[in-house]
Amino acid sequence: MLTDPDPNLPEPEDDRELDQARLRAIQDALAHEQGAAIDHLLEPLHEADIADLLEQLGDVERRTLLRLWSGQIDGEILSELDEAIREEVIEELPPDEVAEAVRGLNTDDIVDVIENLDDETRADAILEALDDIDRIAVEQALGFPEYSAGRLMQREVVTAPSHWTVGQAIDHLRGASDLPEQFYHVILVDPRIRPVGYVTLGKILSSARDVALSEIEEESFRTFEVTDPEDEVAYAFNQYHLISAPVVDANDRLLGVITIDDAVRILDEEAEEDILRLAGVDAEEAISNRTRDVVRRRFPWLAVNLVTAVLASLVIAQFEGVIAQVVALAVLMPIVASMGGNAGTQSLTVAVRALATRDLTGANVWRVIRREVFAGAINGAIFAVVMGIVGVVWFGSPMLGVVIAVAMVINLIVAGFAGVGIPVVLEKAKIDPALASGAFVTTVTDVVGFFAFLGLAAIWLI
Amino acid sequence: MLTDPDPNLPEPEDDRELDQARLRAIQDALAHEQGAAIDHLLEPLHEADIADLLEQLGDVERRTLLRLWSGQIDGEILSELDEAIREEVIEELPPDEVAEAVRGLNTDDIVDVIENLDDETRADAILEALDDIDRIAVEQALGFPEYSAGRLMQREVVTAPSHWTVGQAIDHLRGASDLPEQFYHVILVDPRIRPVGYVTLGKILSSARDVALSEIEEESFRTFEVTDPEDEVAYAFNQYHLISAPVVDANDRLLGVITIDDAVRILDEEAEEDILRLAGVDAEEAISNRTRDVVRRRFPWLAVNLVTAVLASLVIAQFEGVIAQVVALAVLMPIVASMGGNAGTQSLTVAVRALATRDLTGANVWRVIRREVFAGAINGAIFAVVMGIVGVVWFGSPMLGVVIAVAMVINLIVAGFAGVGIPVVLEKAKIDPALASGAFVTTVTDVVGFFAFLGLAAIWLI
Repeated sequence: MLTDPDPNLPEPEDDRELDQARLRAIQDALAHEQGAAIDHLLEPLHEADIADLLEQLGDVERRTLLRLWSGQIDGEILSELDEAIREEVIEELPPDEVAEAVRGLNTDDIVDVIENLDDETRADAILEALDDIDRIAVEQALGFPEYSAGRLMQREVVTAPSHWTVGQAIDHLRGASDLPEQFYHVILVDPRIRPVGYVTLGKILSSARDVALSEIEEESFRTFEVTDPEDEVAYAFNQYHLISAPVVDANDRLLGVITIDDAVRILDEEAEEDILRLAGVDAEEAISNRTRDVVRRRFPWLAVNLVTAVLASLVIAQFEGVIAQVVALAVLMPIVASMGGNAGTQSLTVAVRALATRDLTGANVWRVIRREVFAGAINGAIFAVVMGIVGVVWFGSPMLGVVIAVAMVINLIVAGFAGVGIPVVLEKAKIDPALASGAFVTTVTDVVGFFAFLGLAAIWLI
Repeated sequence: MLTDPDPNLPEPEDDRELDQARLRAIQDALAHEQGAAIDHLLEPLHEADIADLLEQLGDVERRTLLRLWSGQIDGEILSELDEAIREEVIEELPPDEVAEAVRGLNTDDIVDVIENLDDETRADAILEALDDIDRIAVEQALGFPEYSAGRLMQREVVTAPSHWTVGQAIDHLRGASDLPEQFYHVILVDPRIRPVGYVTLGKILSSARDVALSEIEEESFRTFEVTDPEDEVAYAFNQYHLISAPVVDANDRLLGVITIDDAVRILDEEAEEDILRLAGVDAEEAISNRTRDVVRRRFPWLAVNLVTAVLASLVIAQFEGVIAQVVALAVLMPIVASMGGNAGTQSLTVAVRALATRDLTGANVWRVIRREVFAGAINGAIFAVVMGIVGVVWFGSPMLGVVIAVAMVINLIVAGFAGVGIPVVLEKAKIDPALASGAFVTTVTDVVGFFAFLGLAAIWLI
């Protein structure tokens, strides 16, 4: 049993990692209510690891830990937690403690915590407890559309007038009291606070004091509008290797800055969403969800699949008479459908990802479709020969071999065409291809597979 | 036709973006061999966009572009290209030009270009053309295992003795001639060049000259060993929000530094690999691959699927007699298998991702399996009722309704169990669960689905 405490616990490998050994030791200490041992085991852990720990514990263990651990849940831990677990942890804590924890965060992380809280009274209490400047910044951010640059950006920015020298910038930074925890650039602004360029800290540090900032500014400079969707922001960070970028309002005035860690989080979420959606799982699902959430989140896709499966059955039903005469058809028909479904899934997955990374565009879509159709035809032909032989050897009927071979080629060609065509059409129709392609493509390959195989059998075998 | 030149070309929306309008304008200019237009259209594009452009063009278009464009393929463009297209572009260019292009890159990017070149003569020629320092660094990096920290790191590092003050560091940086293009930290080293901590540039800039670097160093500090696998490095960057981190040898001596852009690339590749592998597509496949590569890369998984499909058919074959008596079974049996396959795929996808992000561990594996089995039972029961009714209404046989209902519940419970259990067991056996789980899980759900449905039918209907 994996969750049983082990009397011969191995020492954790790295003294600050949340590995299996430390996890078991913590669970063991929780089972025996050993507060001191818990403190000792948690002491070297990074906030992100403590968040992971809280997610992996069961409900009872988690409550025991919150009760016994002498450390405090700080803002970092809260902002690292899964939404579902975060809500639970916040419910367990006194409101003051939550507000105090959140105060230490940058405004973008405070926004992230508050926008995902279902309990509005809690959210308001946290807002109330913030300093005025932070509260106004957070409230303003919450006024921007969900999933926009405005929600991602932090208000803490470092700017300098574009006419300053390196020396002036350094003197200003040395005197500044409210610098962000991490920053990588100084944004150059004009007198109306519009960003006009930026200078890396490395350039400032390696230049003489009398050099003008405008002389050492970076060549390329990208700003985002506060209403830009977050996936486009993340795409640009990834594509152009940005570390941070200013966010401006409709009048080009500087409002905040988005940093690479936000972009990485969004990129991560987007990839995760695509993976889950391709498998018919709700993109919000997390491993820490409860059974009832899992049931609810999985149900819709299974319902869609039931409809498509019944559709395929209706096709089979048209050929009941043929099957009654040649029962071997019932034995072999799932093979044709299954191969088509798999080939279609291969094509659609490649297409969906290429659309997401913008590698599949109007410039190459016909070339890619042609390629998939050819690839389907060639692999179809190979498997047609194999299955033809299997059909002959197994059932002793050369004509049955021909039927399954031809049906296989037809279905794999259709799979290649549908596998690229359907995601592309869905994307044009502004429907997320990751979400809907699977149902359409497997319906097509099931229907075509059964129809081609049983239809050809009806013509050639009866 | 999407690839046809359009006489009423819209203006590109952003003057430096590679959008559909610009793509078509470029294809149009290529078709008419208009060199000046091509220069004009490519002029504002970022290297990453030029690389995307080269990937999306057809072979003939790409060669025309390389011939007509007056700009040079520089190192940035090369390092952004897909491996397959990069190889082609390098073949088209004179060796001097390639070497010259590569010289401008950091050593990690040079390593990336060279390690992926199939043509060894070319690779050697590029190595020869490098400066001695770079060549030695690249050759040493190529001596580290593939997919290790040693291949990811760049040699260009910025260090300072740990006893220095801010002023000493600034004076040193102002005098240094070989600083990397981008850097975010100064690594503090002891006299044996072992990293002992690091200071952000922001802290250096905002501190007085006489402050000791050791006073403003960051609290947490992570180094990687040169042999650490790249996926662990990327995981740590993501988990702990690192921007850069030193790489050391077995004696803890500083060898180089890994930066966030490398980690983002690996994270991207890992997610991409999981997505493709879950769909049975070779992880190396790219949208720009040729048909023969696609055929070759898709074939193995389809072959595995054929074997599992034949296995399922063997189960059906055991019940030929039953099907011959009740042909309705042939009509309905794919529904049970298909629902099981989909539910299993949902569970396994969630499990595979949770394993990849280390959210599924020994601490919660039994809880997650229990949850999936319960969720399968509940959803199974709902669909059992639906299908029971369909069975009765469609075929007028209450007993057939009971058979399909019970088979559905059994298969969805098995799907939940196998969907989590199989990836976990594969991970323990050091087999990539993303690669192999799908085949195992759908085999289980097909076999169990057909066996339960036809077996129950044999007992209850005949």
